[in-house]
Amino acid sequence: MGKGGGNTSNGEEEENMAAWLVAINTLKIQPFNLPPLGPHDVKVRMKAVGICGSDVHYLKTLRCADFIVKEPMVIGHECAGVIEEVGTEVKDLVVGDRVALEPGISCWRCTHCKQGRYNLCPDMKFFATPPVHGSLANQVVHPADLCFKLPDNVSLEEGAMCEPLSVGVHACRRAEIGPETNVLVMGAGPIGLVTMLAARAFGAPRIVIVDVEDSRLAVAKELGANEIIKVSTNIQDVEEEVGLIQKAMGGGVDVSFDCAGFNKTMTTALTATRPGGKVCLVGMGHNEMTVPLTPAAAREVDVVGIFRYKNTWPLCLEFLRSGKIDVKPLITHRYGFSQKEVEEAFETSARGGNAIKVMFNL
Amino acid sequence: MGKGGGNTSNGEEEENMAAWLVAINTLKIQPFNLPPLGPHDVKVRMKAVGICGSDVHYLKTLRCADFIVKEPMVIGHECAGVIEEVGTEVKDLVVGDRVALEPGISCWRCTHCKQGRYNLCPDMKFFATPPVHGSLANQVVHPADLCFKLPDNVSLEEGAMCEPLSVGVHACRRAEIGPETNVLVMGAGPIGLVTMLAARAFGAPRIVIVDVEDSRLAVAKELGANEIIKVSTNIQDVEEEVGLIQKAMGGGVDVSFDCAGFNKTMTTALTATRPGGKVCLVGMGHNEMTVPLTPAAAREVDVVGIFRYKNTWPLCLEFLRSGKIDVKPLITHRYGFSQKEVEEAFETSARGGNAIKVMFNL
Amino acid sequence: MGKGGGNTSNGEEEENMAAWLVAINTLKIQPFNLPPLGPHDVKVRMKAVGICGSDVHYLKTLRCADFIVKEPMVIGHECAGVIEEVGTEVKDLVVGDRVALEPGISCWRCTHCKQGRYNLCPDMKFFATPPVHGSLANQVVHPADLCFKLPDNVSLEEGAMCEPLSVGVHACRRAEIGPETNVLVMGAGPIGLVTMLAARAFGAPRIVIVDVEDSRLAVAKELGANEIIKVSTNIQDVEEEVGLIQKAMGGGVDVSFDCAGFNKTMTTALTATRPGGKVCLVGMGHNEMTVPLTPAAAREVDVVGIFRYKNTWPLCLEFLRSGKIDVKPLITHRYGFSQKEVEEAFETSARGGNAIKVMFNL
Amino acid sequence: MGKGGGNTSNGEEEENMAAWLVAINTLKIQPFNLPPLGPHDVKVRMKAVGICGSDVHYLKTLRCADFIVKEPMVIGHECAGVIEEVGTEVKDLVVGDRVALEPGISCWRCTHCKQGRYNLCPDMKFFATPPVHGSLANQVVHPADLCFKLPDNVSLEEGAMCEPLSVGVHACRRAEIGPETNVLVMGAGPIGLVTMLAARAFGAPRIVIVDVEDSRLAVAKELGANEIIKVSTNIQDVEEEVGLIQKAMGGGVDVSFDCAGFNKTMTTALTATRPGGKVCLVGMGHNEMTVPLTPAAAREVDVVGIFRYKNTWPLCLEFLRSGKIDVKPLITHRYGFSQKEVEEAFETSARGGNAIKVMFNL
Repeated sequence: MGKGGGNTSNGEEEENMAAWLVAINTLKIQPFNLPPLGPHDVKVRMKAVGICGSDVHYLKTLRCADFIVKEPMVIGHECAGVIEEVGTEVKDLVVGDRVALEPGISCWRCTHCKQGRYNLCPDMKFFATPPVHGSLANQVVHPADLCFKLPDNVSLEEGAMCEPLSVGVHACRRAEIGPETNVLVMGAGPIGLVTMLAARAFGAPRIVIVDVEDSRLAVAKELGANEIIKVSTNIQDVEEEVGLIQKAMGGGVDVSFDCAGFNKTMTTALTATRPGGKVCLVGMGHNEMTVPLTPAAAREVDVVGIFRYKNTWPLCLEFLRSGKIDVKPLITHRYGFSQKEVEEAFETSARGGNAIKVMFNL
Repeated sequence: MGKGGGNTSNGEEEENMAAWLVAINTLKIQPFNLPPLGPHDVKVRMKAVGICGSDVHYLKTLRCADFIVKEPMVIGHECAGVIEEVGTEVKDLVVGDRVALEPGISCWRCTHCKQGRYNLCPDMKFFATPPVHGSLANQVVHPADLCFKLPDNVSLEEGAMCEPLSVGVHACRRAEIGPETNVLVMGAGPIGLVTMLAARAFGAPRIVIVDVEDSRLAVAKELGANEIIKVSTNIQDVEEEVGLIQKAMGGGVDVSFDCAGFNKTMTTALTATRPGGKVCLVGMGHNEMTVPLTPAAAREVDVVGIFRYKNTWPLCLEFLRSGKIDVKPLITHRYGFSQKEVEEAFETSARGGNAIKVMFNL
Repeated sequence: MGKGGGNTSNGEEEENMAAWLVAINTLKIQPFNLPPLGPHDVKVRMKAVGICGSDVHYLKTLRCADFIVKEPMVIGHECAGVIEEVGTEVKDLVVGDRVALEPGISCWRCTHCKQGRYNLCPDMKFFATPPVHGSLANQVVHPADLCFKLPDNVSLEEGAMCEPLSVGVHACRRAEIGPETNVLVMGAGPIGLVTMLAARAFGAPRIVIVDVEDSRLAVAKELGANEIIKVSTNIQDVEEEVGLIQKAMGGGVDVSFDCAGFNKTMTTALTATRPGGKVCLVGMGHNEMTVPLTPAAAREVDVVGIFRYKNTWPLCLEFLRSGKIDVKPLITHRYGFSQKEVEEAFETSARGGNAIKVMFNL
Repeated sequence: MGKGGGNTSNGEEEENMAAWLVAINTLKIQPFNLPPLGPHDVKVRMKAVGICGSDVHYLKTLRCADFIVKEPMVIGHECAGVIEEVGTEVKDLVVGDRVALEPGISCWRCTHCKQGRYNLCPDMKFFATPPVHGSLANQVVHPADLCFKLPDNVSLEEGAMCEPLSVGVHACRRAEIGPETNVLVMGAGPIGLVTMLAARAFGAPRIVIVDVEDSRLAVAKELGANEIIKVSTNIQDVEEEVGLIQKAMGGGVDVSFDCAGFNKTMTTALTATRPGGKVCLVGMGHNEMTVPLTPAAAREVDVVGIFRYKNTWPLCLEFLRSGKIDVKPLITHRYGFSQKEVEEAFETSARGGNAIKVMFNL
């Protein structure tokens, strides 16, 4: 991060370095030329960048869903930093402001953008989604309106956590979580946990979370789940486990979040949810699913999906500011921004185990 | 209703006869004692009763979904008739009024009822859903608030058609069909057709309907489909057929109704629908489905189901009155109410072929 | 309440007494014959009954809005008690259960009821709304589905508070309050306070409340308002006060609740609310209003009203159970159920002053 | 666009002329320098431009609502034309395409824009809203995504009519008009008429329209109103007129559009609308209103306003294409684009009388 003092540094003289995905399992810290600063852009010195499951997936396979890395690409998209330079038309930010970055730049010309569902924009330019470069770098240039000033009591690391938290927030909005919605969360991995935290912040009075691993359930319990239930991976056990879930809920499940996305988790979610409830499919385990969709439809249990998020940063920051959500316990590992540490950090994240969120401090 | 000859008679003296399902494949016209008339009830002389797929299913198997016929049960639930007697508290109906009957009596004490989703009431008493008797009878007693007066230009047969039409109307409401919603209908059977007609009445500008049979598609075209597409039952053809559908639509499919409910139809529906669109699962072909649910969810294509309907009769009658919907072409066969004709009518309905709706004139 | 031991008493022998409104300013404790217990009814021994502003209004004028007391009427509708007898079809309640009573019995046959807006039912029978008797009595008979079992940690007095709290909850639902809604409350009287408490429980991050009296504002501050602002009754001050409000809010007002209902409060609410926000008119100070409705409409500030509430008891009880709302500080005065105490209690309530909620313990 | 004669010319050589508002009651056709064509812009040769009430208002007073004309400004914003040049990044339009222009360019950086309510954007740049120039000119430069290609069977004049029609469409969306919404329209001027046409296209089964002038009502009847009612301007007549309206409606008014915006029209609308219905305030007659807002709120009659429109052009064009709406009868006067005709046209529009829409053919 250079030897510059204070929050602002002597910018232009030092070379901007970034973590490039250059081949399968190969990340290299190399120079990264920034684009010119547009009138509505800011230049941000990165301070905290988290590793997402998709980053690891790209590293291991050079692809994620339909996206394929064909050219070397800077990785990383969960990030926060400090404003180092502002474009001529930027009014709401000044040099030195601490900001969290929303990673996707949408076109604002298509129907989705105009109707307020910009997350569905087909021309979205999104950090570290090929061919767009990411943000694990000393500096990035980004539109000012996608950089959200951190409240004084929210750290840069917490700012970077707005990205994964946004997934949970968007899921809760799509599932219309509120103070009357009892919630089931299938899967206590990082996405299950942020979804649980978001559901609580939206007012869910009772949350039951299930997983196949005791250690993850213990974390979920610590983070506020009302009940935790250990389940198997055996599809035969669905009926019994649905019984346990409904008993633990003390009534009907209003909304189930499937944060795993396998035949069994989705079957459980569809079966456990009360007539007129919702299942929100967040995880992406199986592509094609074999599930009892018809009986669920015949009880008017709706299935809603999510793609990323929209308009979530202000709400995430408010949740963090007010203490309605505490994401700090999710940050289990921290690394600096050297070639060696970058490699180690990704290994840690890929290994899973007790790692929830692995964070770079730049 | 006086001493008029024909179907109407001098009420109390004559014995009320009904079509009883007494065993598999066995319907018998036998006496049917009516319950006493409550203060908010009316007695209706049945004039038109249609045969539904579920009626045929009960006849062939004594069951439908989770419902099992354990005792002899009067069949029939698509019906209209003439008021013959009104309870002491009935204010809006008088003897002689022609009415269409909504077949389900809900409890009005459960959460679903109180929140306006009375179709999900677990204590619903519904014509010809065991152990509740149906309406293929000379007379039935029914709550006045479930008997809807027919406009002058709507016939009793059309009144009976409110029931199947209600399925289409409820599906359109759940899928939020309006003048900006381009619609795909999978399946041109009776339910596909009423859904298509309802979608048009809700303002859908463009409707593409697909089926495996040319004859059904011809009917759909005649009834107003913009485009018809013949498809196979081979899952391998989905990609090609989705291409044909989207070309016929001339753009994205906003809402797909799967009125068949098979792996292939649902796969087609999920794939053809644009990001942010909806698939409404109406048909019940397969119970467990193997479908690409995850990629659909990741495009925020939501899946909504339906169970029966609610508050649909007034709208159906308005659609019929105004001519926005014409259900008369759907009534392909008519029978009287004798033992022989009842048997023939059910055979005709079960055979399918060119029969869409088989109607009794009592 | 008689000398009966335990929660259940020897019911039939003792005479049921009630507080009858017999003339202007005249309440008499007199015998009150209960109707027979229907199969879905329960008999409840009243334990806590609060005094509402409308009760006082009836006492002072024999009328409220369009309702006029023409015959002696039992007063009271904010209440909780203990089940003393259950009808033959009652399944979810047993003798001894502590319950809060929702006071309105709707018809379940009209369009409003069927569509889930039963509070708009034109045939509603509502405690102490003429000609229907109220619940300030030793015992009442009421439908079981309108009696909600209290959680163990919720007292009978708190149960009675569900009624006024329901007004705030219904207002928050109609105004769609959630974790992103910054709220202005005009008026810190009982209704302003319950609305504020409900808004907080629905997740409102920031609440500013204004009033003309310091003492009420002090209570509001204690109960959790983020900012309190003393205002005048002078319409000339609107502009300045809107400035103060927006400054105190630290941004736009998303939703304003006018819990007073005067020209000035409504003008302030309409002016202070951001484009696209909502004003919910709860108070009923002026009937005809002179307000800048057109400029508000031209900023798409919508005005929504409320009439009583619907489906609020379960949510109120959950808010009380979980501690998201504490209504105990609102109960400022308590009285027994004697002729003298009834008179005193209504005087206390009518006088206002530091009285917020006056409660009878029967 | 080549050297074709007629209205299209050889672009760059000729001087672009526009109608400038230079002082009160003074319009001058003068040269108008176009801005450079951006990569996402198109240059459009104007062919049809309508005169709006706001144009006339600016001409007479140099102001409209809070907007004040301080510098000479090109007038006009209801327009359609032919693409003459496309920016480098424009993909969906080519030279020669006939297009209707949406007049407002929003910022796409503010909260309103991002949430899909771009009509509320505080930084909107809108044709002929000072200090932004309008479109009554030979040519304008405009973002391609705000230029909507006309279907083959829709004329350029009809294209220009999308702008006023959009007001009606947006009002219908905000009031949630559908096939179950019986509609009252207060005022049969241009805005009342487009609102009526839009309500019909959204499916409103029954529309009653009232006005103070027989001639306007006759037009409304011709354009499809179910019933017309002549009313007075006397506030004393509200009760009687509400009776006439409800009788003409044959039941409750579900939604009232006040397209006049006076105390009396709004009082009538609030009073005539059924419990749970909506009043949409479209007209802007009075700024401050004296109306019975409290009793309306106590029946949960909501008041919604509109500001311009959003995402309406595609739907307007579909309504015109399909024939669900015919706007041609609204175009009562046509003028060419000379100094003399411009003056005459504005005089005609200002005079009112039988003029509904005055259109320039350039």
